Amino acid sequence: MKKIPILRLGRILLVSIQEDLTDNEAMQFQSDLVNKVAEIEALGVAVDITALDVVDSYMARVINDTASMVRLLGAEVVICGIQPYVAMTLIEMGRDLIGADCAFNLDQGLEMLRERIAHRGDIRFTGDGDE
Amino acid sequence: MKKIPILRLGRILLVSIQEDLTDNEAMQFQSDLVNKVAEIEALGVAVDITALDVVDSYMARVINDTASMVRLLGAEVVICGIQPYVAMTLIEMGRDLIGADCAFNLDQGLEMLRERIAHRGDIRFTGDGDE
Repeated sequence: MKKIPILRLGRILLVSIQEDLTDNEAMQFQSDLVNKVAEIEALGVAVDITALDVVDSYMARVINDTASMVRLLGAEVVICGIQPYVAMTLIEMGRDLIGADCAFNLDQGLEMLRERIAHRGDIRFTGDGDE
Repeated sequence: MKKIPILRLGRILLVSIQEDLTDNEAMQFQSDLVNKVAEIEALGVAVDITALDVVDSYMARVINDTASMVRLLGAEVVICGIQPYVAMTLIEMGRDLIGADCAFNLDQGLEMLRERIAHRGDIRFTGDGDE
């Protein structure tokens, strides 16, 4: 069973989904992520799916549910790097398969997260020594 | 019948739900809270549910309804301290069981409320002597 690495950048977490997940892998991933968010009191999570050339309705639901869980804990979420073809098929499959906010790539996703977090009035977001 | 204490911090109210509520307790709580919000013209309410290890669909509805009632009166609401496992089960049970905004803990919830209230253009929100 593959495990999706969760990287930490101050109080922001980065995850990159590289391929389709099975039911078990998805549950493990969600559980790992929410626990990590709770553990470090993450303020934001960037989910990078640049590597996914195809996103079926199951994977869309996994991504969406993950984003919703993280939001319930109180962190901001941005989905990064949805491919053009993926965007087309997601919309054709039905609206709101991805309800979270999206960014073009990881860079812009992080920028967006920082902006959001700053607006929430918590300035301890960049981490890596400037806290 | 247990009564949920409603604490006042300037024009922000704090409530902490420690355990599951019965129908009657939930109605009493909602009634107490909206009356208190109306009485002091509260600008924000932080609902802390850190102590809840399990939130079933009934409790999720109570929390959600309470948040909606408070919003109808014109105050901001933030739900604080949803546990990782609770977040996962809420999402698995169905979308949007908790529609309100969430914060990691009471600290961040208050920060978020203050930010929101400040954006609404009302600066008399902190209370406690700095008015």
